[in-house]
Amino acid sequence: MSNYLNLSQSAQLIKNWDNILILCHKSPDGDTLGSGYGLKAVLNKLGISSRVECFDKAPEKYDYFTQVLPNKEFTPEYIISVDVADAALLGDGICDYPVDLAIDHHISHRDFAKNTLLDATAAATTQIIYDLAKELAVEIDSHIADCLYTGTTTDTGCFKYSNTTSKTMRMAAELMEAGADFVTINKVMFDTKNRNRLALEREVLDRMEYHFDNKIALVCLSVEVIASTGADENDFEGISPIPRQIEGVEAGIIVREKPNGIKISFRTNTVLDASEICGKLGGGGHKRASGALIKENMEVARQMVLDTIAQYEDVLASI
Amino acid sequence: MSNYLNLSQSAQLIKNWDNILILCHKSPDGDTLGSGYGLKAVLNKLGISSRVECFDKAPEKYDYFTQVLPNKEFTPEYIISVDVADAALLGDGICDYPVDLAIDHHISHRDFAKNTLLDATAAATTQIIYDLAKELAVEIDSHIADCLYTGTTTDTGCFKYSNTTSKTMRMAAELMEAGADFVTINKVMFDTKNRNRLALEREVLDRMEYHFDNKIALVCLSVEVIASTGADENDFEGISPIPRQIEGVEAGIIVREKPNGIKISFRTNTVLDASEICGKLGGGGHKRASGALIKENMEVARQMVLDTIAQYEDVLASI
Repeated sequence: MSNYLNLSQSAQLIKNWDNILILCHKSPDGDTLGSGYGLKAVLNKLGISSRVECFDKAPEKYDYFTQVLPNKEFTPEYIISVDVADAALLGDGICDYPVDLAIDHHISHRDFAKNTLLDATAAATTQIIYDLAKELAVEIDSHIADCLYTGTTTDTGCFKYSNTTSKTMRMAAELMEAGADFVTINKVMFDTKNRNRLALEREVLDRMEYHFDNKIALVCLSVEVIASTGADENDFEGISPIPRQIEGVEAGIIVREKPNGIKISFRTNTVLDASEICGKLGGGGHKRASGALIKENMEVARQMVLDTIAQYEDVLASI
Repeated sequence: MSNYLNLSQSAQLIKNWDNILILCHKSPDGDTLGSGYGLKAVLNKLGISSRVECFDKAPEKYDYFTQVLPNKEFTPEYIISVDVADAALLGDGICDYPVDLAIDHHISHRDFAKNTLLDATAAATTQIIYDLAKELAVEIDSHIADCLYTGTTTDTGCFKYSNTTSKTMRMAAELMEAGADFVTINKVMFDTKNRNRLALEREVLDRMEYHFDNKIALVCLSVEVIASTGADENDFEGISPIPRQIEGVEAGIIVREKPNGIKISFRTNTVLDASEICGKLGGGGHKRASGALIKENMEVARQMVLDTIAQYEDVLASI
């Protein structure tokens, strides 16, 4: 059982540390990187040495904040993980020593560190780093603001998702005043697409099938189709929500062929329970967003999905 | 010359009025409607009768706030316009009498009312209505919050555009606390697409041409292609920025056949001056977003656009 700390206890601890290794989760996103580099910059202002490491290389689009402060070489004395919900998400072999402090906002957080600073009401882990900076009386400069704004806007879909709170908005206001380049950040994060991603979107639109009185939108993507677009795993970010965005559609499904089986991404709007339906397909997740992996060929998997939805025709008829 | 008022002078004026006709601009958007219905709800709390009118019918997606308070019948004693930058934008015949007060945030506002409350630093006119509600000591309830949040999020692209300020974010925080249903509002405004719009997007992706070392992305849409999608004018909202979003693309152009000529939508990212280029094509606008109407056939218009861009090859080579 980890030792759960509040903000002030965490700040007290960190103040007396030095040579800190900051760990992000693998397949790093804006929040884990923004939290890691934001914390590094905060520690730097306190004269505490730190460096950020991650199992996977940070995507280039984050260069505007990952390449600002030099990475110092030292033998780590302490380890802090940021936005890591489970030790397994650190990646194999990234950390031989126990993590001294885990800073996280996931309600599903599973204990793995000696100490844990968990705030599940925070829209992003960057929001906790912001609170920590305040607690440590560190002034937010434009670089810290860029880091923290990035994690917050990416984890909230640009202040759109239900995890956004009035506190999130007020923090963003302060970060903007501190010089966060929010126009460029949002442009890079939300309004820039490479040509492979565009080709993938085109295939998704071309292959959209409608079922159950147009209340279900489903897209099948074979390995060949995906290969023809040149899209990689990163390009799939934000693809799953597309079918659900269609007016009148209650559930949007991507049936995607992968080397280890058929991956189902299931998104719903109001009445269908994605978690329940994916449960019947051997998967699970949340009420509005779930997934499953079916070890069959694509046509069989597609039919299994449609047959399972057919059990909820009365629910669909109610909308 | 209109009489320019500050917030407190405007509040003083309105407090003594009754039976107010509130006018939105034609082709109404989230800001003019959110401002109109938000102001109506504020006046309602002060016991002042008002109703909202617009040259065009408000789109159904705004029903959640336009259908809340009953529209009262009365002979107007005073007229207030909201978010109307120019009298011509009211629409023909909508208003036989002079407008008593124009409330607007457009820097390009052209005087037409007896009195004007103009704040060009406001991200949206809803932000001025919010200030006015504060000045009038009206408590923001969830309905007013829905109105004001809608205008703000639509005019800022969900807090993404450069018109967003820290004040905008703090206002949004308060509106969320007052009960604005921000998750649903953003979903309806940004993440819902009808099937015609989707078909149109598909055509845009299918017809994307790359020129000048892939720095220019251009799409031609004929009347026939557009008709085949079933898309109407509303479905074109947000289509123009698509080509510019592609990684490495400096300018994105939509060449669209219309009954009266070929409409050019020209968007640029960093170095090309869209206004200058469209000027050479007989149009104009802003540095990053401009347009022109070319009275030629589509192939000729397309070639004129490319030839004009060719004059800027050295500028394109610099990026």
